[in-house]
Amino acid sequence: MKKEFDRRIGQQAIMYAFAEEEEEASITSELTRKNWLYGKGKVGSMELQKIVAAIETSAKRQRVVNPELYREMHALYHAIIEAMHGVTRGQVELGGMLRTAGLRFAIVRGTPFENVEEGEWIAVAVYGTIGAPVRGFEHEAIGLGINHI
Amino acid sequence: MKKEFDRRIGQQAIMYAFAEEEEEASITSELTRKNWLYGKGKVGSMELQKIVAAIETSAKRQRVVNPELYREMHALYHAIIEAMHGVTRGQVELGGMLRTAGLRFAIVRGTPFENVEEGEWIAVAVYGTIGAPVRGFEHEAIGLGINHI
Amino acid sequence: MKKEFDRRIGQQAIMYAFAEEEEEASITSELTRKNWLYGKGKVGSMELQKIVAAIETSAKRQRVVNPELYREMHALYHAIIEAMHGVTRGQVELGGMLRTAGLRFAIVRGTPFENVEEGEWIAVAVYGTIGAPVRGFEHEAIGLGINHI
Amino acid sequence: MKKEFDRRIGQQAIMYAFAEEEEEASITSELTRKNWLYGKGKVGSMELQKIVAAIETSAKRQRVVNPELYREMHALYHAIIEAMHGVTRGQVELGGMLRTAGLRFAIVRGTPFENVEEGEWIAVAVYGTIGAPVRGFEHEAIGLGINHI
Amino acid sequence: MKKEFDRRIGQQAIMYAFAEEEEEASITSELTRKNWLYGKGKVGSMELQKIVAAIETSAKRQRVVNPELYREMHALYHAIIEAMHGVTRGQVELGGMLRTAGLRFAIVRGTPFENVEEGEWIAVAVYGTIGAPVRGFEHEAIGLGINHI
Amino acid sequence: MKKEFDRRIGQQAIMYAFAEEEEEASITSELTRKNWLYGKGKVGSMELQKIVAAIETSAKRQRVVNPELYREMHALYHAIIEAMHGVTRGQVELGGMLRTAGLRFAIVRGTPFENVEEGEWIAVAVYGTIGAPVRGFEHEAIGLGINHI
Repeated sequence: MKKEFDRRIGQQAIMYAFAEEEEEASITSELTRKNWLYGKGKVGSMELQKIVAAIETSAKRQRVVNPELYREMHALYHAIIEAMHGVTRGQVELGGMLRTAGLRFAIVRGTPFENVEEGEWIAVAVYGTIGAPVRGFEHEAIGLGINHI
Repeated sequence: MKKEFDRRIGQQAIMYAFAEEEEEASITSELTRKNWLYGKGKVGSMELQKIVAAIETSAKRQRVVNPELYREMHALYHAIIEAMHGVTRGQVELGGMLRTAGLRFAIVRGTPFENVEEGEWIAVAVYGTIGAPVRGFEHEAIGLGINHI
Repeated sequence: MKKEFDRRIGQQAIMYAFAEEEEEASITSELTRKNWLYGKGKVGSMELQKIVAAIETSAKRQRVVNPELYREMHALYHAIIEAMHGVTRGQVELGGMLRTAGLRFAIVRGTPFENVEEGEWIAVAVYGTIGAPVRGFEHEAIGLGINHI
Repeated sequence: MKKEFDRRIGQQAIMYAFAEEEEEASITSELTRKNWLYGKGKVGSMELQKIVAAIETSAKRQRVVNPELYREMHALYHAIIEAMHGVTRGQVELGGMLRTAGLRFAIVRGTPFENVEEGEWIAVAVYGTIGAPVRGFEHEAIGLGINHI
Repeated sequence: MKKEFDRRIGQQAIMYAFAEEEEEASITSELTRKNWLYGKGKVGSMELQKIVAAIETSAKRQRVVNPELYREMHALYHAIIEAMHGVTRGQVELGGMLRTAGLRFAIVRGTPFENVEEGEWIAVAVYGTIGAPVRGFEHEAIGLGINHI
Repeated sequence: MKKEFDRRIGQQAIMYAFAEEEEEASITSELTRKNWLYGKGKVGSMELQKIVAAIETSAKRQRVVNPELYREMHALYHAIIEAMHGVTRGQVELGGMLRTAGLRFAIVRGTPFENVEEGEWIAVAVYGTIGAPVRGFEHEAIGLGINHI
């Protein structure tokens, strides 16, 4: 991995979301080496709130965030909504606009800035398909939300 | 490259946008093999219209679209604006909200569906940083727009 | 019909949506003469997805689009959503904002550009009323979405 | 003119905006008969504020609104912005998104409800083209804003 | 109360929404002195339409608006939606984005302009908390909508 | 001051923004007692970025945030933009929509949650008028943005 890439928390979250199971090890070992936290999962729904909930639950269960602290959940929530802007492109809505999404997501928490005082940040990457509720009538979509935590 | 990846025009556009010069060959040779068209470039600006213009110009010059056909420019334009939604997350605006973006972009045009009648589609991927007009006060952002062409 | 009007696919879709049954013949015979496809219908709902679905179903049944091709459904979908922006003016939402819409819609597919290479385009016009879920507490609204197909 | 049409202030504004000079007489004589006020004009710009200003100026000069009353200008302003939502479909912005609009507009002020206590309402209709700042690379757009005044 | 404050219908609506029961008298006696109408209430929901409905119902029951006139309900509706923009900051949506709001609201109707011809205006103020559907995982939010009536 | 009010960082920021010079002492002495940071200022502009810049500059100069840390500027920026949503109600734009704003703003930084681990939060309150670039053709507007810092 290149040095520039090392600090790119967003790109790493995206690569982690892209990764098939067999490709994950090289990414996660690198994240572990840096003492960064991470988690991933999959969710498909016409209901946007279910996607938000799935990412939140995953981040909590995989201990990327502390579920007891609103501060951390607040940071995560805004990162998720920002990521969903990239997926929905215009209005953060799925079923109400007669569309559905099938997404993989990854959450990475780490220190992307050289200055140690910049502290921890969280990146939420979502990648998958969005489209009509008809098999195959869908195209790819991506989103990334980054926040201080 | 895996079989599933082969059809993913969006993911390929993103990987191409991510790629440093020395990594590009494996991506572009694959795109060329499939007879897909592609182009890439960089742009930084506080003016969103300059980013749109830079991507349009790049797509024209690298012959990904036919600049004489409104049909093609219309497809490209909407793909660009959709991609910028992912970058701007809420309002497709930069300077008016006192922020600036430095982006790499890639445009890929190909046939992502097995059914040959689905014809050509275009993917615009943008990746880079967005933030205050102060060096280093910025974080990563990504966007992807896909349209039939 | 005037020569300028002849190419105006959007205005023709609007006039067709406006037309009462007895006025339709002059519009449809003109559209038929040009070998343009068209369809129309009515829908009233507080659920936006039902309006989108009604227009899609109507376009499929009246053979304005090929329901087997995602390419065509994608073009239609975006034209519908763009049209609904005109109706909803700010957020593409109805019931969640405690409002309902009663709409006539028309879909026209044709060749609005002189240059034959510009190919086919689709126009979706919606016209009717939007307002509170109380009879008479509503005013008119219009929307038009145009896309290449 | 049909009885239902008689009350439709929005549809009348649209027909008035559509009308070429030689077709206007039948519309305006009907509006005059009802003691409704009306005005129309044309404007083309990449700057949205110039379009808003042109419609406001036209409404003032043609005495559709009283320029001394904020109340009336407030009603008109919101009707204009709502109409521009139909034209811009997603974000009320032109040049910042590298697009331009060429529009005819009509303003009609009257009493569209049977109940006399519902008082006066104002309709702003805009119709024309929106697209790239390249001749012919544009398609039609429409918008309608209605407000109590 | 200061002279400038006397005309500020929005600030008065906010102070009235802020006021605990024991503080209300000084505000309402002042509003009564000016012959301004007012009402207030509380509502908590994940469904935005329930919040809109609660404010509408409250305004009707407390005779701030005439429920028989669409004109007045139209003015009120837009003021409510504008106020909810301040609460939701980006998209007028609650449950669909997995969030809930607990709000106090106040509606004030009066004559905030010196020029008597400017007539009556209505202000809707909402204040409370917005956040996750988890007790305490929420922060404050405010909104104000003002319209001529 | 009531106990509930004591934790309400948003309401305190609003009251501080409302306060005339002679009323400020009671608010600021209370904020000082809690060791909370605060600042305030005024700005009027048709350019939204100037309003954002004025609030940022004020927060830096009055030492509410550390201008050397992107982390803090990021938290502040998002709080400002959220506050401006309440002022602009629909699109975070001023001059491009032919409107101007004259605002007082207050920034408060403190610990609004009982749980000490929730740490510091920042509230940005803006209050003033928005309207046409014509004296007196404007009405009040408010906004509040809250973020963890």
